[in-house]
Amino acid sequence: MRRKILLNEKEIPEKWYNIIADMPNKPLPPLNPETLNPIGPESLAPLFPMELIKQEVTTEKYVEIPDEVRKIYSMWRPTPLYRAYNLEKFLDTPAKIYYKYEGVSPTGSHKPNTAVPQAYYNKLEGVKKITTETGAGQWGSALSFACNHFDIDCEVYMVKLSFDHKPYRKIMMNTWGADVYASPSDRTLVGRNILQKDPKNTGSLGIAISEAIERAASDDSTKYALGSVLNHVKLHQTIIGQEAILQMEKAGDMPDIVIAPFGGGSNFSGIAFPFLRLNFDEGKKIRCIASEPSSCPKLTRGVFRYDFGDTAGMTPLLPMYTLGHDFIPAPIHAGGLRYHGAGVIVSQLLKDKLIEAKAHDNMEVFSAGTLFAKAEGIIPAPEATHGIATVIDEAEKCKREGVSKTILFNLCGHGNFDMKAYQDYFEGKIKKHELSEEEIKNSIQKLNTPII
Amino acid sequence: MRRKILLNEKEIPEKWYNIIADMPNKPLPPLNPETLNPIGPESLAPLFPMELIKQEVTTEKYVEIPDEVRKIYSMWRPTPLYRAYNLEKFLDTPAKIYYKYEGVSPTGSHKPNTAVPQAYYNKLEGVKKITTETGAGQWGSALSFACNHFDIDCEVYMVKLSFDHKPYRKIMMNTWGADVYASPSDRTLVGRNILQKDPKNTGSLGIAISEAIERAASDDSTKYALGSVLNHVKLHQTIIGQEAILQMEKAGDMPDIVIAPFGGGSNFSGIAFPFLRLNFDEGKKIRCIASEPSSCPKLTRGVFRYDFGDTAGMTPLLPMYTLGHDFIPAPIHAGGLRYHGAGVIVSQLLKDKLIEAKAHDNMEVFSAGTLFAKAEGIIPAPEATHGIATVIDEAEKCKREGVSKTILFNLCGHGNFDMKAYQDYFEGKIKKHELSEEEIKNSIQKLNTPII
Repeated sequence: MRRKILLNEKEIPEKWYNIIADMPNKPLPPLNPETLNPIGPESLAPLFPMELIKQEVTTEKYVEIPDEVRKIYSMWRPTPLYRAYNLEKFLDTPAKIYYKYEGVSPTGSHKPNTAVPQAYYNKLEGVKKITTETGAGQWGSALSFACNHFDIDCEVYMVKLSFDHKPYRKIMMNTWGADVYASPSDRTLVGRNILQKDPKNTGSLGIAISEAIERAASDDSTKYALGSVLNHVKLHQTIIGQEAILQMEKAGDMPDIVIAPFGGGSNFSGIAFPFLRLNFDEGKKIRCIASEPSSCPKLTRGVFRYDFGDTAGMTPLLPMYTLGHDFIPAPIHAGGLRYHGAGVIVSQLLKDKLIEAKAHDNMEVFSAGTLFAKAEGIIPAPEATHGIATVIDEAEKCKREGVSKTILFNLCGHGNFDMKAYQDYFEGKIKKHELSEEEIKNSIQKLNTPII
Repeated sequence: MRRKILLNEKEIPEKWYNIIADMPNKPLPPLNPETLNPIGPESLAPLFPMELIKQEVTTEKYVEIPDEVRKIYSMWRPTPLYRAYNLEKFLDTPAKIYYKYEGVSPTGSHKPNTAVPQAYYNKLEGVKKITTETGAGQWGSALSFACNHFDIDCEVYMVKLSFDHKPYRKIMMNTWGADVYASPSDRTLVGRNILQKDPKNTGSLGIAISEAIERAASDDSTKYALGSVLNHVKLHQTIIGQEAILQMEKAGDMPDIVIAPFGGGSNFSGIAFPFLRLNFDEGKKIRCIASEPSSCPKLTRGVFRYDFGDTAGMTPLLPMYTLGHDFIPAPIHAGGLRYHGAGVIVSQLLKDKLIEAKAHDNMEVFSAGTLFAKAEGIIPAPEATHGIATVIDEAEKCKREGVSKTILFNLCGHGNFDMKAYQDYFEGKIKKHELSEEEIKNSIQKLNTPII
């Protein structure tokens, strides 16, 4: 019995995998919202350093990971792969369950995988300050950590709901020297406009993105960083799946099903894309399933069309599954999944039926998370519990059908900063947040962006 | 450059090391407080299962770790050993600094190393419920985790100050099914007496121990578990140092100095005792330093004499360095170090000058902790920052003297549940808690226990 499959630092992959190279249908181009013409990489220059823009549009199959980045990765990578023997026993399933555990990073999630290279490329190009948004606080923490390492100032707009509920995430960011503001804030035009109309607005990721972009756009030595959705973010996260393939090989096994929670797509892409490469290159038939909250079901109930990445409409129009850019998701605890849209690549893959999606109710995911904590000892972040709910479904299906499948999922983070969520669950305060057909239709009908 | 020295699961040591076998002067016996005669192991039977009592008094050099315990250890062990390259660079020191990181356990500290075997031996002997105390919550979390695994009920008395300040530790324990009560509570005679005199009493470890013991003593199928101080607890923790020796060998290095924070001694003993074995067996001269808060300085300013392990005087009299059993330490954030006495073995070793001790002020330790977080990424628990302060002192000494020494310390836990402490530090609310000669003299003079 071997519970953990470990790699040594020399086995940290030397390349990120760019799935665009292998996609049968490439993603449609982003559009200029005014002219509706495709926009080129140059229009991203005010916000991102050139190297990241190149990565955003590259069609090369692999991108080399700089040595300096691999060196910082080695602070916590390679992350362990666990065989979930205890969970299998709890579920009495013939399925073999593995999980890749990203919670061992300094900030407790997979987010530093992209925060570190983003800060690195910004540093190379002389950037003095990076602005960003954060929902639950995982991304903001990761960027704070990375900026501290490279001595770059970091300014974080944190969704007010989380800012109030999760003060300790803010302190964590402060520990690494970042400035953190509740969003909407009075530091931006966007924020002031929203507060004027609705002084009690509790914010959303879309609003926080608008604020961070506005700040970055108004200062030459300041850039912006995004923690999910964009292609280069997903590229960086493929380090997870690249390692997992090595580890599954060491375990003498290979997954039939790969599962991860889904917010903007960085976590799902990170583990799934390298396994999809095996489908493309070697004709494997690994099922990849994205797990989303039923209160924010863009993949399972949204529409595939052009939409903005933020609430205020400051980003280019992106071709994606969306619930509408001013959709405000219910205040579930999985703040990292409260986003109206899905990244461009994942959206195209879903459209082409190369991946699957599944939605889970709020009650179901906390039941799954608590069961996991009892079995495996690790208390999962609320985001991660969504993936666990899908794992349990698939493992129970194996039991019903009497087949043994190998299931791998990405345990993207621990719940040490989310105990309030578990408290609410234990106290019966977690509610179902199912959306009616009407609510979804209303939100999407408001869109006047191009249909694909 | 290799940052992490990892072991595989097969390398989890098969034996705990019992330092008593090698001590030149064995610890003096515990005394019956009424007769002042040495007490035998049988008097511990109402509180502990027989196997743990045997371990408490054994003089065998090694005790075998049961397979079942090693299997559970494999959920997080072997823990990584890190070379602190970034910290060395920050300090610009010629010293080589390593740390053993126990924060990767499910509960975030070294405490499950003994919680698991304690629950295991209780289970073997049919115990249905275990009571315990907890200060900062680390020990209570660990025992909750272990009891959940063996399906034993767990009842935790949590020092009220921590109960109020750290609600999330309580939820963590609830997640594994434990019942948690603020101590002093109205569930025990001890608690009710204290509350009657002082309804606002914020508790102490000594009081919480008294409560947990009272509950266990009054029910046949209930036993008690202690998270530090006792010999069997220290025995179990030697898994840390046993692993660390293997890892230092793999790194091709060996420490000149071993450092750990000191509360009751479990953490310090865990890493230091196996290295002291090398001093005994191989004539090495490894310095082992225990780091305590200057607000609770039993090792550096206490007296070596018989005293009770708890406030109410329910334990046998133990020969130890103590500040007096009703000494109430200042409400520092390092709740795990707020204990009036030192374990028997460590006390004897200090008396015999086989180990050293050093006290650090509250301000100094948070400065050390923040520096460590910036350099190495991991935010240390307030307890752990005490060890880091000693590490920095020694590393700076190396710099002044121009010598390169190898320093190893035990990073016993992460600070994910302690961000309020860092917040207080950043907001200037952390105060010095130096004790006057008079305060210490007053507390010790009250003792009427036997002088050694």
